[in-house]
Amino acid sequence: MIQKFTWILALVMISFNLGFGQSIQSPDSRFSLKFQTTTSGIPVYSLTFQGKPVIADSKMGFELSEKPGLYQNFEISSIDTTSFDETWKPVWGEESSIRNHYKEMAVTLLQQETGRIMLIRFRLFNTGLGFRYEFPKQDNLGHFVIQDEKTEFAMTGDHTAFWIPGDYDTQEYDYTTSKLSEIRKNFDAAVTSNASQQQFSKTGVQTALMMKTSDGLYINLHEAALIDFPVMHLNLDDENMIFESWLTPQPDGTKANMIAPATTPWRTIIASDDAREVLASRITYNLNEPSKIENTNWIQPTKYVGVWWEMITGKSSWAYTDEYKAVKLGETDFAAAKPNGKHAANTAHVKEYIDFAAENGFDGVLVEGWNVGWEDWFGHAKDYVFDFVTPYPDFDVKAIEKYAQEKGVKMIMHHETSSSVRNYERHMDTAYQFMKAHHYDAVKSGYVGDILPKGQNHYNQWMVNHYLYAVKKAADYQIMVNAHEAARPTGVARTWPNLIGNESARGTEYQAFGGSKPNHVTILPFTRLIGGPMDYTPGIFEMDISKLNPANDSHVNSTLANQLALYVTMYSPLQMAADLPENYQRFPDAFQFIKDVPVAWERSVYLEAEPGAYLTIARKDKNSENWFIGNVNGNEKRTASISFDFLEKGQDYIATIYADGPKADYLNNPQDYMIKKFRITSKSKLKQASVPGGGFAISIVQATKKEVKGLSKL
Amino acid sequence: MIQKFTWILALVMISFNLGFGQSIQSPDSRFSLKFQTTTSGIPVYSLTFQGKPVIADSKMGFELSEKPGLYQNFEISSIDTTSFDETWKPVWGEESSIRNHYKEMAVTLLQQETGRIMLIRFRLFNTGLGFRYEFPKQDNLGHFVIQDEKTEFAMTGDHTAFWIPGDYDTQEYDYTTSKLSEIRKNFDAAVTSNASQQQFSKTGVQTALMMKTSDGLYINLHEAALIDFPVMHLNLDDENMIFESWLTPQPDGTKANMIAPATTPWRTIIASDDAREVLASRITYNLNEPSKIENTNWIQPTKYVGVWWEMITGKSSWAYTDEYKAVKLGETDFAAAKPNGKHAANTAHVKEYIDFAAENGFDGVLVEGWNVGWEDWFGHAKDYVFDFVTPYPDFDVKAIEKYAQEKGVKMIMHHETSSSVRNYERHMDTAYQFMKAHHYDAVKSGYVGDILPKGQNHYNQWMVNHYLYAVKKAADYQIMVNAHEAARPTGVARTWPNLIGNESARGTEYQAFGGSKPNHVTILPFTRLIGGPMDYTPGIFEMDISKLNPANDSHVNSTLANQLALYVTMYSPLQMAADLPENYQRFPDAFQFIKDVPVAWERSVYLEAEPGAYLTIARKDKNSENWFIGNVNGNEKRTASISFDFLEKGQDYIATIYADGPKADYLNNPQDYMIKKFRITSKSKLKQASVPGGGFAISIVQATKKEVKGLSKL
Repeated sequence: MIQKFTWILALVMISFNLGFGQSIQSPDSRFSLKFQTTTSGIPVYSLTFQGKPVIADSKMGFELSEKPGLYQNFEISSIDTTSFDETWKPVWGEESSIRNHYKEMAVTLLQQETGRIMLIRFRLFNTGLGFRYEFPKQDNLGHFVIQDEKTEFAMTGDHTAFWIPGDYDTQEYDYTTSKLSEIRKNFDAAVTSNASQQQFSKTGVQTALMMKTSDGLYINLHEAALIDFPVMHLNLDDENMIFESWLTPQPDGTKANMIAPATTPWRTIIASDDAREVLASRITYNLNEPSKIENTNWIQPTKYVGVWWEMITGKSSWAYTDEYKAVKLGETDFAAAKPNGKHAANTAHVKEYIDFAAENGFDGVLVEGWNVGWEDWFGHAKDYVFDFVTPYPDFDVKAIEKYAQEKGVKMIMHHETSSSVRNYERHMDTAYQFMKAHHYDAVKSGYVGDILPKGQNHYNQWMVNHYLYAVKKAADYQIMVNAHEAARPTGVARTWPNLIGNESARGTEYQAFGGSKPNHVTILPFTRLIGGPMDYTPGIFEMDISKLNPANDSHVNSTLANQLALYVTMYSPLQMAADLPENYQRFPDAFQFIKDVPVAWERSVYLEAEPGAYLTIARKDKNSENWFIGNVNGNEKRTASISFDFLEKGQDYIATIYADGPKADYLNNPQDYMIKKFRITSKSKLKQASVPGGGFAISIVQATKKEVKGLSKL
Repeated sequence: MIQKFTWILALVMISFNLGFGQSIQSPDSRFSLKFQTTTSGIPVYSLTFQGKPVIADSKMGFELSEKPGLYQNFEISSIDTTSFDETWKPVWGEESSIRNHYKEMAVTLLQQETGRIMLIRFRLFNTGLGFRYEFPKQDNLGHFVIQDEKTEFAMTGDHTAFWIPGDYDTQEYDYTTSKLSEIRKNFDAAVTSNASQQQFSKTGVQTALMMKTSDGLYINLHEAALIDFPVMHLNLDDENMIFESWLTPQPDGTKANMIAPATTPWRTIIASDDAREVLASRITYNLNEPSKIENTNWIQPTKYVGVWWEMITGKSSWAYTDEYKAVKLGETDFAAAKPNGKHAANTAHVKEYIDFAAENGFDGVLVEGWNVGWEDWFGHAKDYVFDFVTPYPDFDVKAIEKYAQEKGVKMIMHHETSSSVRNYERHMDTAYQFMKAHHYDAVKSGYVGDILPKGQNHYNQWMVNHYLYAVKKAADYQIMVNAHEAARPTGVARTWPNLIGNESARGTEYQAFGGSKPNHVTILPFTRLIGGPMDYTPGIFEMDISKLNPANDSHVNSTLANQLALYVTMYSPLQMAADLPENYQRFPDAFQFIKDVPVAWERSVYLEAEPGAYLTIARKDKNSENWFIGNVNGNEKRTASISFDFLEKGQDYIATIYADGPKADYLNNPQDYMIKKFRITSKSKLKQASVPGGGFAISIVQATKKEVKGLSKL
């Protein structure tokens, strides 16, 4: 197989007729980037890691709606190389400071026939490459329309890929692990049903795409700083193993309307022979602009509970009544409606959640289904679907506001838009003002279903523009945003740190919709989380959904210990404890970990990592000397080997290990867990088994000699 | 020909197998409406006027996206007939009070197979019929999607029609006068180029459609109360001469998303053997709801001048600079740009217009091109195209505001949206607030070019919703709206009287774009104006456009006297004197009529009318005892015969007649006019010649015996 692709590559090289080129190395010299143009003036780049090819010669450029495009007949008019090294402090993140260190090569290209200039800017970091196209202000290029981006990512073999189907409307798929050559035959099976979906090619996949070569190189393709541009997918030429950028189209089939001066998002290639480096890479954030919000002290990592899982499982309902076939806001009289008896967002019940949050140290309570319109919100292309300010008769906004304030708990707003985007923008100011008037500082927004107006897709330029519009406007009101079903993040939260979360992947809700693959959470950190945090909503303790709703026989494909580990492995400044309070009350000792685990971190250490197989991460609390470890395990039973050498030397700690029990089985016995306490130091080592779909969580608390007395050493 | 159609009709009748039916008569018994269902349960209506068929048996109903539709298998479950008679006072209009007098028949239809109920409500007036579909609240019908409206308007012969091509994006066409059977062959020639256009059928035409039968019956088809529904076009089956409703589609090809309870707009059929009755009919307004604005004293008819014609002719420019190929609002520095020297919206020049308005009694001054963004506003599908609040460096908002206030003149705002609809909605509140802060009480809005987001058309449900949104939001700010390129009016201004004008037809601007047909203005009152006033922008005194701009050889196909008459014949509460001040200053005696003519009327008398040929209308000032007459003439020289018997008996008046001069010729000598003064009473009669494209205007001022002394009697 290798031989075959080498041969093809050789052919491609010849046909390119490559001319003059220039190379740069990463600061640590492991990466080498080469840029050149073909004799027909097509830009070409290639990338190696420690001498091994990561990206073979790959073409670059754009087909425009008007000929000629920005693809060929370029000549290099100048190449500028520079270095950059700074350390910056994110408002929140996996660590409190991030180093941004790269070699840059800016290639200015002149297209003789048009007099147009296009610049390609490469930034080569110690963990990979970012590059983007820039269109400077110039006389011969003002408005232009991108018909297709022609950026290639030429693979050097038939790598193993962790992929989801390319889709203009959803990322909520389980990952398929297959060879690149097997994407096509696995494609249809990989497309599970969703509230809105549109694929474009049987070899089309989404980014962040994680791959592993046969000789152990890990390669990750994604993008950074997606602003005013469509989401990039990758379409594979599976004869030559070349990915090409596939942008989400506008209704007329064109991809992006551009105005020079302009830049595209960055295309990123993270690579290493150690999967942990992929997780530790900060390329995505580093390629985004610094925060545009000056005062960020209102942006706070948040651990929350919510009136949510009971609706997701079907135990309760978002809707207040079952009487109405159709609702007209402002006309339909809810006070006159017969309640369906299943409406969870009622004052008394919400107060129970507030009590639970206050008692257990949660910062916030999310309530879905509080506002009128849920009776017919989905599937009707309904324009005026929600007004975001009118509660159901049983939801007393003021009483809940007062109660939450008394209990020191923040209410979290919910804005499901039903993808009626114009309607949301029309009500946005009023909705945000309503939030501030009632002391809501954060909103979970949702874009379920096909986009309205018709003809738009979730990931095209028009919608990418909208998502950021909502975030910027929220920033004006000092509101944090957690947008579900929006385009997957690309590090834009560095620039707009009030974007504290996104869903944009298959979250825990699917465990109540038939279940996700047991190794799902060992892949997400290598894919979806490359761009930013995910509101995965972990913490399910009752895996048998029929216990909540007899009509729902879904099963959560995870052990309870695995659920605890997610609070560490799935980094997010926003973490939910998603299960019902009564399920937590059944397992108070395990619940203690969720109560203890922080959501703000000082430092992260990636102990073990193999996409699809396992993941062990240690993180230090930002506000104490304590550490927390999470391990999630894939489809095979496995024993993790951990050294605690990241701990402060000479210091004693108490480690509480929440691990799979001896008979744990994600399918048949997921609630078998064991809790062990040990005395540890930086010299300690641990071997800890995890079952398939299992894992473990450890809290590590600094302790005095006296406190650890009596505890056995690890 | 007649025989052929009678035969076809007989066939149709048989195939219908008409069953039980019921009839009602108009209050004056001239009209008779018959409703029945076919044996397959299809609703059918027909209409006669004084025993002559107006509409032959015509089917009704809807095809829905989901089968079965609301088209057949109906049975009549009840028929309710009622009468209504009231007189109401419009905020502005052709008369100060309007009688709303009709017989109503409400047919409740039950579709057995679905249990659904649809109601058809007919209102039969003395000047014609209105009917609409109603979908009451019911268990078996909530959300539904209209795939096609199947309403037929079966003509009884090959009538003469005054038509423009059916188009989803523009009404800005010259009218073609042809037999119905000749629409197809004339269609392509009738489609002249426009900034945005999309036809759908070679026999598709727009409403209001004016027709005349071979035996002298005038028939007008239009709609009333177009709210949250797509614009209706008419598609002709030109073998059987049956029009069918053709709704403007959504991007997915469906026509309208509906939620019961709901109603459609009214479909209207005005008919008479006297064309003047078509003009006098108030069916369109009567079928709309009363004003939803309680305090309307801020809505004021307005006569205005503007910085506009000089840009339309190409003498000046909207743009400030020619340096920028592309503008980025907020980034492009206009202060640093080299002015192009043709920018008309500059402070000094605007002050000249303010002076001119103040000196000549105009209420307002419109200024276009005052705000940044005109350099690249058109043709680029540019989303963030205007912000509606940032002036060019040479337009001093505060100085102009102050100067206008000192001179007692109102500034009129201009919001060209470039059809970037989301952008306009995003900025709308700020833009309206900016207006109020600077004492602008009225806005001319524009929707030039293809709609953004792509996939939408000017006349589909989504855009119809937008236009009314803009009007309602303006009402919140007590702002009057004059929307250009929006969907043509359907009497909605009764409900939202701050909608004081629309363009939505081929206005005077086309006289600078190559010219309109000389009889254009004899057709518009029978077509475009049936739904509401048009901001036609008359008053051009210099017909040779090359005098303004040597590069523009367009000619205004009208005599100067015809231009004066338009202030009476083209009813609007908003009337512009569109030409440049210097052109008015060359003809001060003729300009006197524009200075004298009011914009608020007490009463209108339709003296003579024949679509395409001539029109003579008399109107009484709302604020005095004076009358004004306008006559516009079509393609043939003609002498009008007028009796002044509408004047107060025994009262003397001075009539000043502004008529075509002896050598007047719209093409070669349009500025030949003559002004004559006479003493008249209610017994006077006038014969006055008008040349092709000509006309006359008369001001009639109540006078004392002393004042009329020495004036010759007419």
